[in-house]
Amino acid sequence: MSTDALPMTVPAPGLPARVRIHEVGPRDGLQNEAATVPTEVKAEFIRRLAGAGLATVEATSFVHPRWVPQLADAEALFPLVADVPAELPVLVPNERGLERALALGARRVAVFASATESFAQANLNRSVDGALAMFEPVVACAKEAGGHVRGYLSMCFGDPWEGPVPVDRVVRVCRALVDLGCDELSLGDTIGVATPGHVRALLTALEDAGIATGVLGVHFHDTYGQALANTLAALEHGVTTVDASAGGLGGCPYAKSATGNLATEDLVWMLRGLGIDTGVDLSRLVATSVWMADRLGRPSPSRTVRALTGSAADSHKEQ
Amino acid sequence: MSTDALPMTVPAPGLPARVRIHEVGPRDGLQNEAATVPTEVKAEFIRRLAGAGLATVEATSFVHPRWVPQLADAEALFPLVADVPAELPVLVPNERGLERALALGARRVAVFASATESFAQANLNRSVDGALAMFEPVVACAKEAGGHVRGYLSMCFGDPWEGPVPVDRVVRVCRALVDLGCDELSLGDTIGVATPGHVRALLTALEDAGIATGVLGVHFHDTYGQALANTLAALEHGVTTVDASAGGLGGCPYAKSATGNLATEDLVWMLRGLGIDTGVDLSRLVATSVWMADRLGRPSPSRTVRALTGSAADSHKEQ
Repeated sequence: MSTDALPMTVPAPGLPARVRIHEVGPRDGLQNEAATVPTEVKAEFIRRLAGAGLATVEATSFVHPRWVPQLADAEALFPLVADVPAELPVLVPNERGLERALALGARRVAVFASATESFAQANLNRSVDGALAMFEPVVACAKEAGGHVRGYLSMCFGDPWEGPVPVDRVVRVCRALVDLGCDELSLGDTIGVATPGHVRALLTALEDAGIATGVLGVHFHDTYGQALANTLAALEHGVTTVDASAGGLGGCPYAKSATGNLATEDLVWMLRGLGIDTGVDLSRLVATSVWMADRLGRPSPSRTVRALTGSAADSHKEQ
Repeated sequence: MSTDALPMTVPAPGLPARVRIHEVGPRDGLQNEAATVPTEVKAEFIRRLAGAGLATVEATSFVHPRWVPQLADAEALFPLVADVPAELPVLVPNERGLERALALGARRVAVFASATESFAQANLNRSVDGALAMFEPVVACAKEAGGHVRGYLSMCFGDPWEGPVPVDRVVRVCRALVDLGCDELSLGDTIGVATPGHVRALLTALEDAGIATGVLGVHFHDTYGQALANTLAALEHGVTTVDASAGGLGGCPYAKSATGNLATEDLVWMLRGLGIDTGVDLSRLVATSVWMADRLGRPSPSRTVRALTGSAADSHKEQ
């Protein structure tokens, strides 16, 4: 058995030399878990992810605990990971959330906007522009405090109520987030309906609108199995920040309405094959996801995790 | 809910206008099932797949029943599907298998070679060249009978015993298969370790060796979640034949050592998004895979099947 040497590294021309993975498992993954995970387990998860080489680990959310009870322990958690050698951004929905985060010493924060009116109403109880107005003082205040602000944008490709989302609408909200002062954007395919041509079209439209590709991250969901193909299209366009969730945490992929995040391991496997540097130790990352899966009591949905923790040489029948 | 309009069709420049899907579920999928499926169910599966618009459905194998007992009913099955309006290629390992297939009226046949010595020995009990010598009269005889011959080549990227497989070794065996008279080749990533740069490198090397891209099909496994990204790389190179298995049949993806085929539905979803014509009715295909999953008593591992048969609009939390 020599699959340790796999995948073979064969760079493809025109792709970035290095990609920064924005790990969202502890926040985006765990907030979708039915069971609330103990604070100490969350802290250990973040610590192990950083130990596996992930330089950016989104740690928690300062949304009101009523809305996301799974992350109601943000105040208790954040100090526990203060010494972790990684950037630990946190979600802040409004000025109150930002105050809580800043008081704990957080300086990397993220706001979350929507490209569609339906989701803005459902998720934020506001119009798209109403949400942007809410974020204006949040971004300004974070920047004044010397912070770095990520702007998440949900439903960039399709919306469960509205269907396909026009590219120019996404461009408009991205422009607004950049004008507010966001340092980076994360383009979310919240329901997983993007395909590679759509990804290219959106990235090209953003470039044409004067938004530098360097400020863009992509956040794909594997609902229809498209996340890695979409990532490849984004890399070909020059994107160098990719969101992913360790072990594919986030949404239960065994449920019928899976909304699973791209698994960090599947992403790292592809990038390793392409010779793109991520700084991640895949073995340690897989071990971390297996450890977390044990805590949650169900196996990781990541195909790479499953393949690497099984025996790869058995039962290979012809073709 | 308007996800019926999804994915939005956004073509990407430089991709083929049409792709021929070579459906392998009834053969490659079912031969890996622990339970033997009744002949009538297999016939109905093939009929429904053709009804969903799949123009090529690999029907069965004329390998000796001792080696693949799941497909021991080839003689009984083939006449049951004689009226199905699709090409129905069958696997033939040797002259005896070819005789059996020709006697039933089959004219599209496939031989299966290996790029590595280890797998040639394990699967065919022969060296790579010994297997090619065995296929020589098979291909010649099939061509004399007016047939069309596909040459499968396993382990084109990595091998569980030998590790990474050098591109030039794959090119050599492909050349030999073309020289034998094969009309088309299927490049198999049998253990799923290919990544997009490796795919491009192999396709470029084959082109440089004078093997026309038009005779090439790609056969990716989703063991590490890479199959669709690899397919995108192949499409970008001009490949227009892609193997896939309805519902992702083939290898049990819930087992640790998953070797699952690319699910036809996940492929069709991407191609539909890219505006690439396949002739496939996705709804009928999904219904067929659900029907087959019910016969097998376990859910389809295809993410698209799972997403389309669940409710897509529930539980969308922020980002």
